[in-house]
Amino acid sequence: MSELRRDPITGRWVIISIERGKRPTDFISPSSQRKKGGFCPFCPGNEYTTPPEILAFRLPNTKPNSPGWRLRVMPNKFPALQIYGDLNKMGEGIFDRMNGIGAHEVIVETPEHYESLATIPIKAAEDVLWAYYLRLTDLKKDGRFKYVMIFKNEGEVAGASLEHTHSQLIALPIVPKLVREEIEAASKYYDFKERCIFCDLISQELAYGKRIIYQNDGYVALAPYASRSPFETWIFPKTHEPHFYPPRENFSGLADILQRILKQMDKILDVPPYNFVIHTSILHDDMKEYYHWHLELLPKLTKIAGFEWGSGFYINPTPPEEAARFMREAKI
Amino acid sequence: MSELRRDPITGRWVIISIERGKRPTDFISPSSQRKKGGFCPFCPGNEYTTPPEILAFRLPNTKPNSPGWRLRVMPNKFPALQIYGDLNKMGEGIFDRMNGIGAHEVIVETPEHYESLATIPIKAAEDVLWAYYLRLTDLKKDGRFKYVMIFKNEGEVAGASLEHTHSQLIALPIVPKLVREEIEAASKYYDFKERCIFCDLISQELAYGKRIIYQNDGYVALAPYASRSPFETWIFPKTHEPHFYPPRENFSGLADILQRILKQMDKILDVPPYNFVIHTSILHDDMKEYYHWHLELLPKLTKIAGFEWGSGFYINPTPPEEAARFMREAKI
Repeated sequence: MSELRRDPITGRWVIISIERGKRPTDFISPSSQRKKGGFCPFCPGNEYTTPPEILAFRLPNTKPNSPGWRLRVMPNKFPALQIYGDLNKMGEGIFDRMNGIGAHEVIVETPEHYESLATIPIKAAEDVLWAYYLRLTDLKKDGRFKYVMIFKNEGEVAGASLEHTHSQLIALPIVPKLVREEIEAASKYYDFKERCIFCDLISQELAYGKRIIYQNDGYVALAPYASRSPFETWIFPKTHEPHFYPPRENFSGLADILQRILKQMDKILDVPPYNFVIHTSILHDDMKEYYHWHLELLPKLTKIAGFEWGSGFYINPTPPEEAARFMREAKI
Repeated sequence: MSELRRDPITGRWVIISIERGKRPTDFISPSSQRKKGGFCPFCPGNEYTTPPEILAFRLPNTKPNSPGWRLRVMPNKFPALQIYGDLNKMGEGIFDRMNGIGAHEVIVETPEHYESLATIPIKAAEDVLWAYYLRLTDLKKDGRFKYVMIFKNEGEVAGASLEHTHSQLIALPIVPKLVREEIEAASKYYDFKERCIFCDLISQELAYGKRIIYQNDGYVALAPYASRSPFETWIFPKTHEPHFYPPRENFSGLADILQRILKQMDKILDVPPYNFVIHTSILHDDMKEYYHWHLELLPKLTKIAGFEWGSGFYINPTPPEEAARFMREAKI
C-alpha cells in the first residue's frame, strides 16, 4: 500500500507509492550533457556580450571583462528585477503591488563550456560556493533587500536557457512565501521544544541511517522523509549553523559533499536535469537559535501536473529509502 | 520596470515582467492536439482493459463496460491511493505518516478519441461537469475523506499519460496544504470584514474590467491580478456559492464559459497543454459564509525552475491585463 508522509517542517504531504517503487533506469529524462557548443556568451572571449562583471576570480594582471578568469559573476542580461529605483509600495483595492526592485545575477562556474559543476576540479566547485558567499554578504548591505535566493537550474528541462554551467541569485525586497513558511515552522518548533527542528531531524536521520546518502566531517546528505520527487536530496551542516555563512575552512567539505551527490546522480540517472536552492535565513533577522541553512536538490524526473498545482501535494513513485540506497551504491 | 504583485488570498508574490511583455506567439509549447491514435484503453470497444466503470452516461439497454456510453468514470488503473483499508495514522519520531487510503478516478469525457473538452458539443461538456458533481457528492458519503480534488491534465507536457481526453479526481484523507491555506486566508478575511474575499475580488474586477476575459449570466472568467503564468484564468460563479454544488440549471452556463475559455486558448496559443483544478470547500465543514468555489486554469507555457521551487514566487512575462485582452480579442 502506498503511504502518506508529512514533511515535519512545511507540513507538506506527499504520497509515496511504495508498490510502484521505480528504479533509477525507469526515469527517462533528457540528459543535460553539454552538446551544442556554438556561440556562447559565457565562454572566454565573449565577455563583451554580457553586462560588466561584478566579481571574478582571475589570473593576476588580466583585465575585467576579458579572458583569464576561472569564475565570473555578472548581472543577468534579462533580469527579472532591476537594481535601481524605489519600491513604491501601493494598494489597488484589495491588491498589493510594488516596483520590481532587486538584483538578478549569474555565476558562471567555469570557463570550460563542456564541464559541469559535477566535473570541474573540487577547488573550482569550492570557488563557486565561495562566490555565493561573497555575493550574499555584499547584497546584505543593501537595506532594500530582505532575502537572497541562490539557485541553479541545470539542463533545459530544469529551466536553464544557456547550457554553459552557471548558477543564479535573486535578491528580493520581500521574503518569499515558502521561505517565510519554513522559517515560521522552525520558529514554532523552537518555541515548543527549545531545540532546532533541523538539528532534531538530522540526529534522527543519522541514527536511523536508511535515508543517509553520504556524510563527511562537516556535512550530511540525505533523502528527505517526505521527498517530493525521486532522488530529492538535502545537504545540511551537521552542527547548528543558521545562515549560509560557513567558516572559510568548511568550504572544501561543502564542495566535497555537493560534488559527490552530483556525481552519484549523474551516474545513476544519466546526467539528469536538476534544480537546487540554498535555503538560508532572512537577511536582517536574528534567527540564530531556530534556523539551520541547507541546500535542497531536486532532479527533474517527474512532471508537475494538475494535482500538484492544486494541492501542493506530491506523488512520488520512489521511496526515499530506496533512492538513498541507489545513491549510496553508485560507483563513482 | 517590472512589478511585484501579491495574490490577496494566498499571499503568493509574483514578478510581472512588464517590459518583456510577451505576445501569445512567443510561447512555443508542444501542441496537445491528438495525433497518435493506435490502441487506446479509453476508446469504445476497449472497456475490458480498464477497471469496471463506477458511473456512465450511456444509451438505454447497453450493458456496463461495453460500448454505447457518452461519458465513463472508472478507478484509475494505477491509483496513487487505494480505496480499501484503514488510515493507521502513526508517528515516527518527528515524522507523521498514514496509509495511502483514498480514491483515484478517471472521467473519460467522450468516446471520440480525436475530440477535446473544447471541441465536444456543449451538452457533452455539461455532462462532464455534471459527472464531477455526481462523483463529488457520492464520495462525500465516505467519512474517511476530507477533500476531493477534481483536475484535468491536458497534453503530455501537462502530465497527461494518455491522449484521449479525460479528467481525474482524487479523494484524500487529509486537506492538502494549499487548499487549507486558501481556506484559512478566506476565513481570516471574513473575520475582519464579514465579507467573502472572492466576492470582493470579483466585484472589484468587474468594475475595473481590464482583467475580465468573458462572462455570462452566472459566471465570470478573469486573468488573476497576480497570475503565476501567462494566460492563467480563473472562473467564478458571480454570486456567492461556497461549494461545487451548483444548481442543476447552472451547468449549461458553466459549460459555456469553460468551453469558451478553452476555445480562446486553443486559438491564440495553438492548442496548448494545460492543467485545471476545481477549488471547492472541505467535505464536512460548513464554510458557507467565507468560501467561494472556483476553477483555476493554467496553460503550461513556462518552466518551473529553481527559483520557483525554492520561493513559491513566480516570474510571469505576460501581464494579466495583456493576456485578458488577447483572450477577449480571439476570434473563435
